[in-house]
Amino acid sequence: MNTVQVNLGSRSYPIYIGEGLLGRAELVTPHIVGHQVLVVTDEQVAPQYLAPVLASLSDYQTEQLILPTGESHKTPATLNQIFDVLLQYRFSRDATLVALGGGVIGDMVGFAAACYQRGVRFIQMPTTLLAQVDSSVGGKTAVNHPLGKNMIGAFHQPCCVVADTSTLQSLDPRQLRAGCAEVIKYGLISDVGFFVWLEEHLQAVLGLEPQAIAEAVRRSCENKAAVVSADEHERGQRALLNLGHTFGHAIETGLGYGRWIHGEAVAVGMVMAARMSVRLGLLPEGEAVRTRELLECTGLPVKLPAELGVEEMLAHMSVDKKVLAGKLRLVLLEAIGQATLVDDFDPVILRETLQEA
Amino acid sequence: MNTVQVNLGSRSYPIYIGEGLLGRAELVTPHIVGHQVLVVTDEQVAPQYLAPVLASLSDYQTEQLILPTGESHKTPATLNQIFDVLLQYRFSRDATLVALGGGVIGDMVGFAAACYQRGVRFIQMPTTLLAQVDSSVGGKTAVNHPLGKNMIGAFHQPCCVVADTSTLQSLDPRQLRAGCAEVIKYGLISDVGFFVWLEEHLQAVLGLEPQAIAEAVRRSCENKAAVVSADEHERGQRALLNLGHTFGHAIETGLGYGRWIHGEAVAVGMVMAARMSVRLGLLPEGEAVRTRELLECTGLPVKLPAELGVEEMLAHMSVDKKVLAGKLRLVLLEAIGQATLVDDFDPVILRETLQEA
Repeated sequence: MNTVQVNLGSRSYPIYIGEGLLGRAELVTPHIVGHQVLVVTDEQVAPQYLAPVLASLSDYQTEQLILPTGESHKTPATLNQIFDVLLQYRFSRDATLVALGGGVIGDMVGFAAACYQRGVRFIQMPTTLLAQVDSSVGGKTAVNHPLGKNMIGAFHQPCCVVADTSTLQSLDPRQLRAGCAEVIKYGLISDVGFFVWLEEHLQAVLGLEPQAIAEAVRRSCENKAAVVSADEHERGQRALLNLGHTFGHAIETGLGYGRWIHGEAVAVGMVMAARMSVRLGLLPEGEAVRTRELLECTGLPVKLPAELGVEEMLAHMSVDKKVLAGKLRLVLLEAIGQATLVDDFDPVILRETLQEA
Repeated sequence: MNTVQVNLGSRSYPIYIGEGLLGRAELVTPHIVGHQVLVVTDEQVAPQYLAPVLASLSDYQTEQLILPTGESHKTPATLNQIFDVLLQYRFSRDATLVALGGGVIGDMVGFAAACYQRGVRFIQMPTTLLAQVDSSVGGKTAVNHPLGKNMIGAFHQPCCVVADTSTLQSLDPRQLRAGCAEVIKYGLISDVGFFVWLEEHLQAVLGLEPQAIAEAVRRSCENKAAVVSADEHERGQRALLNLGHTFGHAIETGLGYGRWIHGEAVAVGMVMAARMSVRLGLLPEGEAVRTRELLECTGLPVKLPAELGVEEMLAHMSVDKKVLAGKLRLVLLEAIGQATLVDDFDPVILRETLQEA
């Protein structure tokens, strides 16, 4: 087992990474304060992992809630179902929530924990690659609004993250590839060495060879933890983690949540960010090609879906959270391993990038 | 004009108290960062005060939202209306919300500001006595759930509070008396000098004599600011501000939100807390009598509503947020001016107190 620490003063917490960690009571019990625990999961994850998790929590008053699966359920209405259960069982302010599942479950349960009685503890148990390397780490929680993804949320840090890499063995290959988009993102943003390692070990990672996947998760979490520790509330460099996400969110919103999964939209978004960086003279052509090729080898989409027009993309991009004072800010690349925030670009270049894609 | 400072490090902010402050642009503009401002108010407040507030914000892109009046609308559904407007007008992360109205508007707009894009700025412009002396100060925001009041919320500090005491002239006398319950609360909790001042100046305060009401608001805000500065997230002494509130919330929930207004329920709650303190031998009988008399002179209820039974009260009290690890904690009195947290009392005493009331 590897442990990566997220350093945030009194809100610091460990990420445990390894095989067979779900069900190991000694990892989570030191992080539970009261005697009430609500485990929230979804219909897809529950049959496989709910029983061992509940068994490891047998010392507590444990309740469970199984939500429908998918991004289309990441709504205020589903959030209310969590509050209903918490209040029905009279959960107090020192209760603990456990988010067992992918990014949708983690984001929603984290937000429920942020709001219930103005904030209770929660534990992340991510079961998808995307959740293990990205969404479960860093305390960003949210639900979607019909007019924008993750528009309603909070910064609320978990008290620990248990990333059991065995759970990835049963992951839908499409979800695995989508998670790889975020893994590749860390290489692109800040870790050229990791990018090169991925170019060499991509098939081992996709084949879920234990050493390779553990290494990919660990290095991703280390990169994410470093950024989050330096800028918890995204006042500066944390925004770099959104490489490809402004384009990606526009694709997800444009198609309707759930048609493309997050990592797929982000993959296209990163290709577009790289292409735009080349157009602006920031990035050498060859590095944009390597970016596209690594994503393509992963089996991820690298082109905009045909049904989304340029105008629609522009409209959706302008409600993205990265719009500051009415100006669109984009995360672009100066090199593989070096992302940068750009807001003073010629809008024509953005339009051309969208047309080309 | 008086200014009371809430000291919370980087989240510190001023409370401006005085006559004719609404519409004074120079008070609020230093606290607005972006160019988008949404003023949220309700149907009762809008006709009187919305126009001057909007006029003072004419340098910004200003939108308005007028919500229905009353505690029964302090729900997740109304909260969503605020998000709808923010997204419809593409408000960005540096937007500012203005809460113009009573405690319901302040709590709800504050919570919307806490959640929109994971947190934007907001300004409190309280127009009721209760909001000026209590709910607008300290960053507690929330909406209600059918199973409990203020159960879904956040700690989110405003960037300033503008308490225009002229607005109290048009306040419904019932609302004015309810606000006085919270004013008296500060005397009971921590400021015996203020309690004695209130015993002497109650009629001047209720008659809205300018000097008396300004003094009552200022001393209340000073007491609240001191407690909040010492314990922002209610890990300790801030809980003392809930004197009478565990009983009071149970009354509000039991009757259905809106039948009794908050200050009325808290008035009865404080009488019950005093009575229970006497039963436990904490408080001299005479001080409980003075407590009841000052509330009674204010014209507030001092007895439980006839339709609420003891069992119902006990059931509602057990979901109150002050329940820690399944144990009911109550704020009681050791003297007028000295509140204390008690959780190791004989439940029979609580039952007897409820029966007596």
